[in-house]
Amino acid sequence: MKHLLSTHDLSVEQMISLLETADYMSEINTRSISKVPALRGKTVASVFFEDSTRTRLSFETAAKRLSADVLTFSAASSSVNKGESLRDTIETLSAMGVDAFVVRHKSSGAPQQITQWTNASVLNAGDGWHQHPTQALLDTYTITRSFGQLDSMKGRTIAIVGDIKHSRVARSDIDMFTRLGAEVILVAPSALLPSHIENWGVTTASSIDEVINSVDVLYMLRMQRERISASNMPSLREYSSHYALTVERAARLSPHALVMHPGPINRGIEMMVDPSDLPGSRILQQVTNGIAVRMAVLFTLLGGDLTATATGGTV
Amino acid sequence: MKHLLSTHDLSVEQMISLLETADYMSEINTRSISKVPALRGKTVASVFFEDSTRTRLSFETAAKRLSADVLTFSAASSSVNKGESLRDTIETLSAMGVDAFVVRHKSSGAPQQITQWTNASVLNAGDGWHQHPTQALLDTYTITRSFGQLDSMKGRTIAIVGDIKHSRVARSDIDMFTRLGAEVILVAPSALLPSHIENWGVTTASSIDEVINSVDVLYMLRMQRERISASNMPSLREYSSHYALTVERAARLSPHALVMHPGPINRGIEMMVDPSDLPGSRILQQVTNGIAVRMAVLFTLLGGDLTATATGGTV
Amino acid sequence: MKHLLSTHDLSVEQMISLLETADYMSEINTRSISKVPALRGKTVASVFFEDSTRTRLSFETAAKRLSADVLTFSAASSSVNKGESLRDTIETLSAMGVDAFVVRHKSSGAPQQITQWTNASVLNAGDGWHQHPTQALLDTYTITRSFGQLDSMKGRTIAIVGDIKHSRVARSDIDMFTRLGAEVILVAPSALLPSHIENWGVTTASSIDEVINSVDVLYMLRMQRERISASNMPSLREYSSHYALTVERAARLSPHALVMHPGPINRGIEMMVDPSDLPGSRILQQVTNGIAVRMAVLFTLLGGDLTATATGGTV
Repeated sequence: MKHLLSTHDLSVEQMISLLETADYMSEINTRSISKVPALRGKTVASVFFEDSTRTRLSFETAAKRLSADVLTFSAASSSVNKGESLRDTIETLSAMGVDAFVVRHKSSGAPQQITQWTNASVLNAGDGWHQHPTQALLDTYTITRSFGQLDSMKGRTIAIVGDIKHSRVARSDIDMFTRLGAEVILVAPSALLPSHIENWGVTTASSIDEVINSVDVLYMLRMQRERISASNMPSLREYSSHYALTVERAARLSPHALVMHPGPINRGIEMMVDPSDLPGSRILQQVTNGIAVRMAVLFTLLGGDLTATATGGTV
Repeated sequence: MKHLLSTHDLSVEQMISLLETADYMSEINTRSISKVPALRGKTVASVFFEDSTRTRLSFETAAKRLSADVLTFSAASSSVNKGESLRDTIETLSAMGVDAFVVRHKSSGAPQQITQWTNASVLNAGDGWHQHPTQALLDTYTITRSFGQLDSMKGRTIAIVGDIKHSRVARSDIDMFTRLGAEVILVAPSALLPSHIENWGVTTASSIDEVINSVDVLYMLRMQRERISASNMPSLREYSSHYALTVERAARLSPHALVMHPGPINRGIEMMVDPSDLPGSRILQQVTNGIAVRMAVLFTLLGGDLTATATGGTV
Repeated sequence: MKHLLSTHDLSVEQMISLLETADYMSEINTRSISKVPALRGKTVASVFFEDSTRTRLSFETAAKRLSADVLTFSAASSSVNKGESLRDTIETLSAMGVDAFVVRHKSSGAPQQITQWTNASVLNAGDGWHQHPTQALLDTYTITRSFGQLDSMKGRTIAIVGDIKHSRVARSDIDMFTRLGAEVILVAPSALLPSHIENWGVTTASSIDEVINSVDVLYMLRMQRERISASNMPSLREYSSHYALTVERAARLSPHALVMHPGPINRGIEMMVDPSDLPGSRILQQVTNGIAVRMAVLFTLLGGDLTATATGGTV
């Protein structure tokens, strides 16, 4: 495995292996000195053409915990503004000795394209509406470690609620969850469902109320206020009446059901309830697991030194 | 001591202990390899909702000298712009494994509020007009180490000049200086004095000329040009005639008197003299001491490993 | 050698010594753990008053490979905007314990001026139209290591093409190339040649076609679209007809000739050919060599520990 561009690149065995490596990384993160020299001397470039402090900091923290050096390239203040091409940017950074690029870009396929211009590893940190594979890994990690081990995914019912059409998180999650044996229900107005989902192996529902009693996982997507009209809903109130998680609805969840969200939360839109009031919320656990999962991916792609992760390794 | 939110949280014994730890950190900073692994594996997040390159770099440098990893969260380019709440921001960063938050915020009390949302330590790096406790510590350190040891604060006369009303530096300094036995005189137009200072244990003066001959420390505050009209002064010239440090006035200071300023200096407003021409200036020494004092605070709050500060500790 | 402000400061012996140190740094960069503790505990401040992600990242990467801590000062978000003077900025950072300043500034001579305000080393990373000495070093390194060792510079013909007048790269390259024995030809419209070049020891040509057959090195400068009219050329097409590298012209280069460019490339202006189609292109090699050369300069100025660069040194 050299790159991580899409969940489609991963076999089920590779997913399982990455999640087991994440278990090991989670243990490192609980140590009093939560840093190991596994990637000492490696350089990880985070190259974000779209703002995302949250995902960028998660990757950068993961890299630092493994003692890699981090080179932050912010498109906003760079030669990209002088018209430098994406290719020239990548080739230049690559020539500086970058070992892995962590890329976010508004165009689907940009990370794939970048692999042609560098010998470094490329990690997709979100491209257009296409894919966000580390999000799917951390979501899977969160679900399986909440319910037990990996086969706990089999037969579980997971509802994904909101703007499926424009969501790379949804596309990555759907692929990984279904291949690991979960049953996925998409809950969205028809205008916010992608056109061709016949082969996705999912079912649909048109209101959160149809699924709220029976799901094992309720996965809420971020809903942008300006997309509500595109959903053929006349108002925020109309949208919320079908698709928001309210206090009343939360009360109808099974006691064991998990509530998840990729963040940042839109309070008052899709989340009409405070997540800290929900015993089943795993939203902050997702953030914590994101560090461990990204450590596992960086470690695996960059051929980290396992002996350098043992307790007592000097940094 | 878990947090440092205000000078009011510190007993005199705790102040003295922090300043003694700062002595130790000052010694580290003079070594040829001025870095120790005392906070290796710890993550310090600097979370600045108001720009302050100077204070932010001081804290980040302090953290790096102790081998902590630094995670810089800049409000400007973050989800805060997408309407994410302060609470969600803090909870998310906290879930990434942050050990200490260094917070600057325009609202008084924000750092206190943040302690409710995280198990990490919180350091107030300036909140509204309220407090800036590490500034008070570094100012006290500068004064006491200039005059001798800590009891040199007793009976010293310190004039604080300028916009007291809007100054968190003044509030923190006044509390710490008076509790350590100094006599504090506030020199400001009445419009720039806070309303209720009866219980502060200070006296006031309405011109710098009333105090210039007798002070041990002349502490100049930064005066913002736009606040001069609010001070009921018709002009910059009028303000300067009462409250600026000029060459003539500087000549009337006692030979042993110190001149201090929290920076950045407003040349031509409160400072009509070049500080590098003043033998008593400690303005750059304050910056140097800021590193040592912030190392001491981070080290103390995060339970750093003292053996890892010895000469020859590997990083 | 304490500062590196200009190529004029370097004797030929010092140039050769820096390039030999860069050979050693290049070797470090090919190790599986490409990081050495030679500058552990040193702090390098990169202080850029003009945007240049490329040069800044090159210096910062170089510093990190030697285990220095990097403090990034961005003029955009700093007190400079509140009117703080350059001097106050430098004195403040210096008081924080900076060991070396890497400075870019739009004013010629700013780095020289800065040496008066600090005891730290100052490296000029580009000042106005004046100098960019590490660029000249990396260009010289690239040429000499392509052709053999240093005396391979003697008698070589190097054409520098484009906007010489406004180029600090050209000024630094011309000085270093000629002093090492190369023959330099400036190819530019007369409006883009500096006024007084009689003593520079160079010749001129008014079209790239006059030199393309015979040069050992074709050094293309970045041409800004808005300067084309200043060159008395009526159009981009007119400029390109004399000064751009096209596919046809590239075919007329000697098989051994090198094509170089300081970057970022302006495709469709001075570069009408894709550099990756040119076997003689050293443009990406220049970027790679930039890291090694800047490591050599930082190491030399800061008195790095040579024993700490051996294989197996712990970081």
